[in-house]
Amino acid sequence: MSEIANIEETTICACSTGNCSGAVAVVRMSGPDTIDILSKVFKPKRDVDLKTVPGYTLLYGDVLKRDGSPLDDVLVSIFKAPHSYTGEDSAEISCHGSNYIVRELLSMLTDNGAKYAAGGDFTKRAFLNGKMDLAQAEAVCDLISSETEAAHDVAMQQMRGGFSKELEAMRTNLLQIVSLLELELDFSDEEVQFADRKELQKLLDDSCSQINSLISSFKLGNAIKSGVPVAIVGATNTGKSTLLNALLREDRAIVSSIAGTTRDTIEDVINLDGILFRFIDTAGIRATLEAIEKMGIERTYYKIRQASIVLMMLDSTNPDGFAESIDNLSKRINSSEQTLFILLNKCDKSSILPASEKEEAAIHSEKTALNADDLVERVRAMAADAGLYPSAILPISARQKVGLDVLESMLVESQKSLRASSDMVLVSNMRHYTALKDAYNALLRANVALGEHVPTDLVAQDIRESLYSIGTIVGAVSTDEILGNIFKNFCIGK
Amino acid sequence: MSEIANIEETTICACSTGNCSGAVAVVRMSGPDTIDILSKVFKPKRDVDLKTVPGYTLLYGDVLKRDGSPLDDVLVSIFKAPHSYTGEDSAEISCHGSNYIVRELLSMLTDNGAKYAAGGDFTKRAFLNGKMDLAQAEAVCDLISSETEAAHDVAMQQMRGGFSKELEAMRTNLLQIVSLLELELDFSDEEVQFADRKELQKLLDDSCSQINSLISSFKLGNAIKSGVPVAIVGATNTGKSTLLNALLREDRAIVSSIAGTTRDTIEDVINLDGILFRFIDTAGIRATLEAIEKMGIERTYYKIRQASIVLMMLDSTNPDGFAESIDNLSKRINSSEQTLFILLNKCDKSSILPASEKEEAAIHSEKTALNADDLVERVRAMAADAGLYPSAILPISARQKVGLDVLESMLVESQKSLRASSDMVLVSNMRHYTALKDAYNALLRANVALGEHVPTDLVAQDIRESLYSIGTIVGAVSTDEILGNIFKNFCIGK
Repeated sequence: MSEIANIEETTICACSTGNCSGAVAVVRMSGPDTIDILSKVFKPKRDVDLKTVPGYTLLYGDVLKRDGSPLDDVLVSIFKAPHSYTGEDSAEISCHGSNYIVRELLSMLTDNGAKYAAGGDFTKRAFLNGKMDLAQAEAVCDLISSETEAAHDVAMQQMRGGFSKELEAMRTNLLQIVSLLELELDFSDEEVQFADRKELQKLLDDSCSQINSLISSFKLGNAIKSGVPVAIVGATNTGKSTLLNALLREDRAIVSSIAGTTRDTIEDVINLDGILFRFIDTAGIRATLEAIEKMGIERTYYKIRQASIVLMMLDSTNPDGFAESIDNLSKRINSSEQTLFILLNKCDKSSILPASEKEEAAIHSEKTALNADDLVERVRAMAADAGLYPSAILPISARQKVGLDVLESMLVESQKSLRASSDMVLVSNMRHYTALKDAYNALLRANVALGEHVPTDLVAQDIRESLYSIGTIVGAVSTDEILGNIFKNFCIGK
Repeated sequence: MSEIANIEETTICACSTGNCSGAVAVVRMSGPDTIDILSKVFKPKRDVDLKTVPGYTLLYGDVLKRDGSPLDDVLVSIFKAPHSYTGEDSAEISCHGSNYIVRELLSMLTDNGAKYAAGGDFTKRAFLNGKMDLAQAEAVCDLISSETEAAHDVAMQQMRGGFSKELEAMRTNLLQIVSLLELELDFSDEEVQFADRKELQKLLDDSCSQINSLISSFKLGNAIKSGVPVAIVGATNTGKSTLLNALLREDRAIVSSIAGTTRDTIEDVINLDGILFRFIDTAGIRATLEAIEKMGIERTYYKIRQASIVLMMLDSTNPDGFAESIDNLSKRINSSEQTLFILLNKCDKSSILPASEKEEAAIHSEKTALNADDLVERVRAMAADAGLYPSAILPISARQKVGLDVLESMLVESQKSLRASSDMVLVSNMRHYTALKDAYNALLRANVALGEHVPTDLVAQDIRESLYSIGTIVGAVSTDEILGNIFKNFCIGK
């Protein structure tokens, strides 16, 4: 049975406030039997007839168990179709946040005919009932998981339809082109060209560049949503994991996993000054390799290529190893697109101290502190020889937590563009990104074909394909399968 | 400054839906500036003046950030004093369950003058504003953490005032006695006895037995709330921890910690068929002891004394050790008050199988299965010699999970009284229990004194003390310190 036929008949319910117990829990119900089911379990204190109360009514009263004993005293908000989140009759029951009460209440609702909602079922109904398009529905999920202002703003922009409006303009444009082309087809016997080909070419060029700029925004959008990928690389035992642990220190909000964003491995995400960074610890790179290690190293190289920022660790107590490490990395990094920081670790042991702490160390330590600046310059020269131009070379001690605050400010500074974007439209969803790339490729084909005087129907077919891809984003075209894939990532109760 | 003076001036806010993110979060605000602060951050879609809307108004609208951009679209429930949970003007803001949104919303509310609420602040205000007494307020916390129907029913009974009513009747009684005694004092020069001493004695006896029955209910009430304590005891390597792990298998709801109920160590709590069992793994008991082990063993003995049920593990592959273990335990257990189960563990290795599986094993195994019934009878005889009369002796295999379902049903069966009590008044709170014992002791003193013709003012003083202790339960007398101790265990936002 199709989703659309199905939802008209069923009433769903779920707890919308997560699994951990709090002071209050909210149980939601939506569907044609909402009021009927509600009236079987809820007795308002005020003398009202639930069947006739208007939408936006707030009632205090008791939920009574089958034996008439009180389960809880609750607040119930009643909404009437179409003026609700889902567009259907709905109720939100605000009860005490006890696991037992929530479990019992849901079981009473289902005993009276409601079905347990699956993840995203309420939002799916909002989409199917025309309360929002598919991109807006997906933004609801992003909004809930947003941890930073930037991620929030991107999701909010999308939820309020900013992204959809751009896509709609693009579709209108392409629809105009395709109708002109198809009109021409209808009169093909008469060999007339209704559409001015030059004009068409220009419209197509415009659409291409519009889509292209959305596609380009994905790198930024994805970094804002999932975190800026930062690969920590270096030879074995240079202190990569120690650095990661030091950066993840517990006095800061750590997001260990964002549901639905990181697809395979879960990496550690930190919110530094409002910017999410996704730190990726990699296997140590060694020049001489046993066969069995190769796969791990290949993964490391892949992660380096995906990273926006590379933190290269050198062991400052072992300067002899610098050349090999720098040489190794230089073959893997794309200097023009990736930001590189070189970290001279273990500076506490090598007595190479950051300038700020040199003076104090000179007093307290009998060892003569090496001149850090000299070593930094030496590394800078070696890097330049290998074609690497790091944004900074920092002496640090991951273990003693020396120099990490400087590193963190530099990381934040390097990504400050991630914060000034509250009204920009950014693509932050992999599904949208893929659909836009499909749309773009189809348009490119159409554009080339138009120039090469390929038959009109083939050109029109390419543009139709492009339109189809764009249509999948907002859900102008959608299947149960697409919907299933999208909403399975939602939390229950939304 | 006293709490009571303080609350009249401040407006508090907190997230009431726990820390984990869900589809929806509810932010609560209460206090005289609620509507004022709300109107600075919330813009309803409907054209209404927030300052004049009546209580129980439900509004949809936007929370706008300082720069005018939308933070979220929210549903706001408005309550007007005194018709709210706290008795003050209050609002509940239902927003998307994003950590960022909740954080921002709370910071906007506090920027406009609200204070972050501490745990239990809303309920404390409900108490101070006379919406509920102290015992009812404490029941709110118990209700939220209730995991079983029985725990829920005890808390609900208390929250609805069932317990308070009994205490009130008791106080009225005692107040009557004390006023008669004090009236007598006023006329002491004239050496008259207004009060019929026999009648007084009877009233006191009645009060004593009433309090005593409440005190006795604590064992049941506490077992319902915190779980029936089950000690797993036995010699080292009999499989105690294996049994615990097998019982805690993941396909069942495990409550690892109930806040505010278990005071020191956190033990593992399992919900078996609606009854909470708190399993306590103990150190192995050995007859010959090194000095350094003594403390651990003393703790084990203490835990055995606290348990309602003792599961004694014997290693069925080593029958030679039975006598010593049984002898050891017999000195520690109180047969008349504690339920004992003896478990013959490792029955898979000793080929002692439960009757139900014997037949199948005889077919599949070449070993001749020992006669389990014979071994059980042998153990029963040894136990009887040591003065122990176990409710059951069960062959099990903790590792192979053989016989555990039988054990579980027997555990449930032994505690079925914990379930038939939806309208009983039970004491389930340690503070109430202690106060009742104080009240009882003071009454006993008064009772004895009355019989021994101690001067009337001393008798009256004892009864006043008893009244004071009872008064602390419902909060008829309370101090900031008592309140602080009670509400610090509440979750934030309640």
